[in-house]
Amino acid sequence: MVYPASVFITGANRGIGLGLVREFLKVPTVKHVIAGARNPDNAEELNAIGDKRLNIVKIDIESDESIKNAYKQIETIVGESGLNMLLNNAAILPPYFTNGAICRETLMKCVNVNVLGTAIVSQTFLPLLRKASSHGSGDHWGVDRAAIVNISSFWASIEQNEDGSGDLGSLAYRISKSAVNQLGKTMAIDLKGDKIVVAQFCPGWVQTDMGNMGGRTAAITVEESASALVKSMSKLTKEHSGGYFDRHLKVIPY
Amino acid sequence: MVYPASVFITGANRGIGLGLVREFLKVPTVKHVIAGARNPDNAEELNAIGDKRLNIVKIDIESDESIKNAYKQIETIVGESGLNMLLNNAAILPPYFTNGAICRETLMKCVNVNVLGTAIVSQTFLPLLRKASSHGSGDHWGVDRAAIVNISSFWASIEQNEDGSGDLGSLAYRISKSAVNQLGKTMAIDLKGDKIVVAQFCPGWVQTDMGNMGGRTAAITVEESASALVKSMSKLTKEHSGGYFDRHLKVIPY
Repeated sequence: MVYPASVFITGANRGIGLGLVREFLKVPTVKHVIAGARNPDNAEELNAIGDKRLNIVKIDIESDESIKNAYKQIETIVGESGLNMLLNNAAILPPYFTNGAICRETLMKCVNVNVLGTAIVSQTFLPLLRKASSHGSGDHWGVDRAAIVNISSFWASIEQNEDGSGDLGSLAYRISKSAVNQLGKTMAIDLKGDKIVVAQFCPGWVQTDMGNMGGRTAAITVEESASALVKSMSKLTKEHSGGYFDRHLKVIPY
Repeated sequence: MVYPASVFITGANRGIGLGLVREFLKVPTVKHVIAGARNPDNAEELNAIGDKRLNIVKIDIESDESIKNAYKQIETIVGESGLNMLLNNAAILPPYFTNGAICRETLMKCVNVNVLGTAIVSQTFLPLLRKASSHGSGDHWGVDRAAIVNISSFWASIEQNEDGSGDLGSLAYRISKSAVNQLGKTMAIDLKGDKIVVAQFCPGWVQTDMGNMGGRTAAITVEESASALVKSMSKLTKEHSGGYFDRHLKVIPY
């Protein structure tokens, strides 16, 4: 298995983000797990983790200034090694229905966090990812060299959309995650010269606040999802770049 | 061929929008062609068209208020017949590159016009589309009953994205148009009960200000594109709803 020496995870105070933090900390060769949270002081579960390899960094991906501040801190943490892996996980799911209230602000907020936040964080962290990639050699690509991984969703699939806005009002979330898939595909092509893998994953239907919305209990635990995701990430190489996968690295149609 | 008695086209003051206005006016059974423009006073070419079936309506799809005002005017024009066809055409292409300047505002503007504007216009006009659909009978679906057609782009295809941001900086545009495809697919499912077709079209590489960007001359004329589009729209039925097509109604992979 191939792991990053350093990984930065946004939205890491709960849900899948927190699960991924725990999962990476299980790997002895991982040196730095950097957990991004909007309010580190309130991130109780993160703060309770007693592992010196964990750094908690304040980041609000709606704010370019906050992203820049996080960059400076992470640059100090990883130093000349650069950052091997950026894991864009932070996202929101505000209910929105075709046949419901008309509210541009809700659509805007969802797109701003899920898509624009992911784009700006990715662009901002390119110098640190390039630095890490420059230490790799030859034609090797992978999360141990340099990677951007975006947490997408099954709901991003336009091809497999069968229930529209559905019971939960997924319209805003769906369009944002389809946009994330196109963002990742576009960046993957643009970053070929840097040997940076860019991949999109659906974590599955996971028992988080988001996954359990509408009073249902999701199919799998956070640990099951995070464990499968990290295993699949360890297999990422050049041919996966731009792709959209389930947690077992099975291709999902866009 | 099957045509709408009334059609409302946004961004109709130039380019493909203007071409679609001219094309629909060629059809004798079309009663109302409503051309949306941000600045009707400056829409010289529209104003020069001497056809009583043409109405020019002010609409800025970034403004909910402007959309509501346009709705009121169009309601008066189409009356109890309702609106058969909403053609979301207005869009912008601001250059944006993965490896270029970081600018959330540019991404936001592009998404606001191309995606959120399309969503809000579509939602706002649902009562008029439903009214038109209610006059149809049985299982007939089509632009002569009720339809939302979104002008998408070849660049919306995530599957077929091979050049990333490319020479023109298509990142913002690409993500916005992929989001439009998901918006259309989601709305198509949500509007099944209303028998409203929702379809997305790539107009081709057309000789417009947008198409000729970067000093190149696009492959086809506005008239060639608009003529093929209107022909394909006339063939739309239930099974096309949610789909993404080229101007000849050939499926494009999402």
